[in-house]
Amino acid sequence: MSKEFPADSIGLVSPRTLKLDEPLELDGGQVLPGFELVYETYGTLNTDRSNAVLVEHALSGHHHAAGYHAGERKPGWWETCIGPGKPIDTNRFFVVCSNNLGGCHGSSGPQSINPESGRIYGADFPIVTVNDWVRSQARLADALGIDTWAAVVGGSLGGMQALQWSIMYPKRLRHAVVIAAAPKLSAQNIAFNEVARQAIITDPEFHDGHYLEHDTIPRQGLALARMLGHITYLSDDAMGAKFGRELREGRFNFNYEVEFQVESYLRHQGQSFVDRFDANTYLLMTKALDYFDPAANFDNDLSAALAGVEASYLVVSFTSDWRFPSSRSREIVRALLDGDKDVVYSEIEAHHGHDAFLMPIDEYLQLFSAYMDRVAREVGA
Amino acid sequence: MSKEFPADSIGLVSPRTLKLDEPLELDGGQVLPGFELVYETYGTLNTDRSNAVLVEHALSGHHHAAGYHAGERKPGWWETCIGPGKPIDTNRFFVVCSNNLGGCHGSSGPQSINPESGRIYGADFPIVTVNDWVRSQARLADALGIDTWAAVVGGSLGGMQALQWSIMYPKRLRHAVVIAAAPKLSAQNIAFNEVARQAIITDPEFHDGHYLEHDTIPRQGLALARMLGHITYLSDDAMGAKFGRELREGRFNFNYEVEFQVESYLRHQGQSFVDRFDANTYLLMTKALDYFDPAANFDNDLSAALAGVEASYLVVSFTSDWRFPSSRSREIVRALLDGDKDVVYSEIEAHHGHDAFLMPIDEYLQLFSAYMDRVAREVGA
Repeated sequence: MSKEFPADSIGLVSPRTLKLDEPLELDGGQVLPGFELVYETYGTLNTDRSNAVLVEHALSGHHHAAGYHAGERKPGWWETCIGPGKPIDTNRFFVVCSNNLGGCHGSSGPQSINPESGRIYGADFPIVTVNDWVRSQARLADALGIDTWAAVVGGSLGGMQALQWSIMYPKRLRHAVVIAAAPKLSAQNIAFNEVARQAIITDPEFHDGHYLEHDTIPRQGLALARMLGHITYLSDDAMGAKFGRELREGRFNFNYEVEFQVESYLRHQGQSFVDRFDANTYLLMTKALDYFDPAANFDNDLSAALAGVEASYLVVSFTSDWRFPSSRSREIVRALLDGDKDVVYSEIEAHHGHDAFLMPIDEYLQLFSAYMDRVAREVGA
Repeated sequence: MSKEFPADSIGLVSPRTLKLDEPLELDGGQVLPGFELVYETYGTLNTDRSNAVLVEHALSGHHHAAGYHAGERKPGWWETCIGPGKPIDTNRFFVVCSNNLGGCHGSSGPQSINPESGRIYGADFPIVTVNDWVRSQARLADALGIDTWAAVVGGSLGGMQALQWSIMYPKRLRHAVVIAAAPKLSAQNIAFNEVARQAIITDPEFHDGHYLEHDTIPRQGLALARMLGHITYLSDDAMGAKFGRELREGRFNFNYEVEFQVESYLRHQGQSFVDRFDANTYLLMTKALDYFDPAANFDNDLSAALAGVEASYLVVSFTSDWRFPSSRSREIVRALLDGDKDVVYSEIEAHHGHDAFLMPIDEYLQLFSAYMDRVAREVGA
């Protein structure tokens, strides 16, 4: 294994599946009679079960956060931050990452069989919320015998889940690490999600969300949604630095084939996404984002929503992130400070845009490592 | 008429059509054997033909810039800025606005009959460039007996045409007014255009651009393109102020129907656009935007591209415009200053985003009026 994988990788990993038989009542009013969560773990749970870290994934993520699956060349999506000696140090922490409920990588979701009908759920899989995810993950924690997480950690939609964990289960986590997130979507954020959804839903191959039963997928719509997403993940500067106005063949074609390199990149991102992601999952993930708004039940007062939290926080934002700019992170920080909560906040200089939370940026990794070192020392890991 | 229309409106107007029989060689290499331009004029050409102002339209615009068409309740698209006593004062100027070649409001374009085949052009109408537009408008100027424009004026893509006029025909305009424009698109700008194009082209009703012959239109694709466009025309703040996170029915539906007001707005904008705009025209307009880059032939040196200009310039940008931010206008201004050209530049405080150039913003209208007053005095109007 040491020959096959980089020394700072956790190396070969494989997923497990947990079947939960208790019914789960969802925010939308529906009840799942039971559900499965697929998850991975890295590192070793210590004897007093105090060194567990829950990693939350973002819109298009999954349970495979680090290490390598047998036969695959690409590591997990957060290999940059999880592994021996990395910010989430697998020599010290027991790391858990599950595919969200409603996902398309093994957890119960639109591609699963609806036990009531015996047919694929498709669009009949209920829309779930961030709260639903946190509740379902609490069941996972119970099953793993983890009463209190050393930290719940995530970027983007993952950061929202970490924040929500600290609100819903204040005693079940010591730290929340909230990276490149926002306390709720802006109208513009919702607008982008809506265009993505309309692209999928109006694709004639969508068949009201029951495309798998028609033996097809809404390929064009999902590709468009992903292309659009990619624009919002990169900064204008990052796109400029990466592609500028470079032409693929050095001259204009005067037709609608690919001309600029950025067009080639986007089309590739769109098409390759279709092969690994489910359109119904994409739809429900964007809805969970739209709905997320912990302050809504507190007269839009985020400080009030956070009044009962007991965790300490690391909040991180990136200068060029225009999807969730630093101002959105500062809303969280201000609300925490209003309640005299313990919070470390840093805005990291980065040109990558929203994607920066996945990138090996020195200042970011150092800050993240230093904070997680504090967490580890607190729990004796 | 005085009872029907506001006092500061030019009132009832109607378009005319100019048929040009000379062949026009396009940048793409194709030759149009002849073409028609539909245009409107407001005000009176003075005896020495010195008071003519050419107004250029943007992506989804047309020749109906001001006043009212018989039986219609909505005035032209730039009624804010064109009329008696307005910045482009029709008591002083003779204002001309034509629908761009390739347009869908009466000028030769994809909806016209191809004289060679006797069929509707559709996708066979050639992709035209900003340069092609300027050349075709020079023919219009010739036909109207206008040797020198007092000013060529436009916002967004219209501003690019004004800039290009000053480069291609330096002696044929005294002033160029370049509002909310850029000297070329960024990779991100191109990326948004590409997603819009893919939405249209991958719509099964597109039929390789010959949808009219199939008695259909790529309705969903064009609506998506327009929805996406609207996000880039408004600022995040403007969207927030206009819609926030307001729900249409006050609660979540947990389905994919319209929930947030911003979704309702976007869907309406998309659907209503389909009824008044042609998808092939949308495609070629976005290509003209992508291709625009006057510095490209000058080793990417905009100052060199502008070395031969003789016009004076007004350049205007808006603080919240993220489609073409102020920094893009300042590129133009710096290049002009490098060549000791005469330029007035102002960044206007506005929260509207890119759409600000169409809005009645006091500071903007005052600046614009003051500049056009200078133009009028120069030409004795």
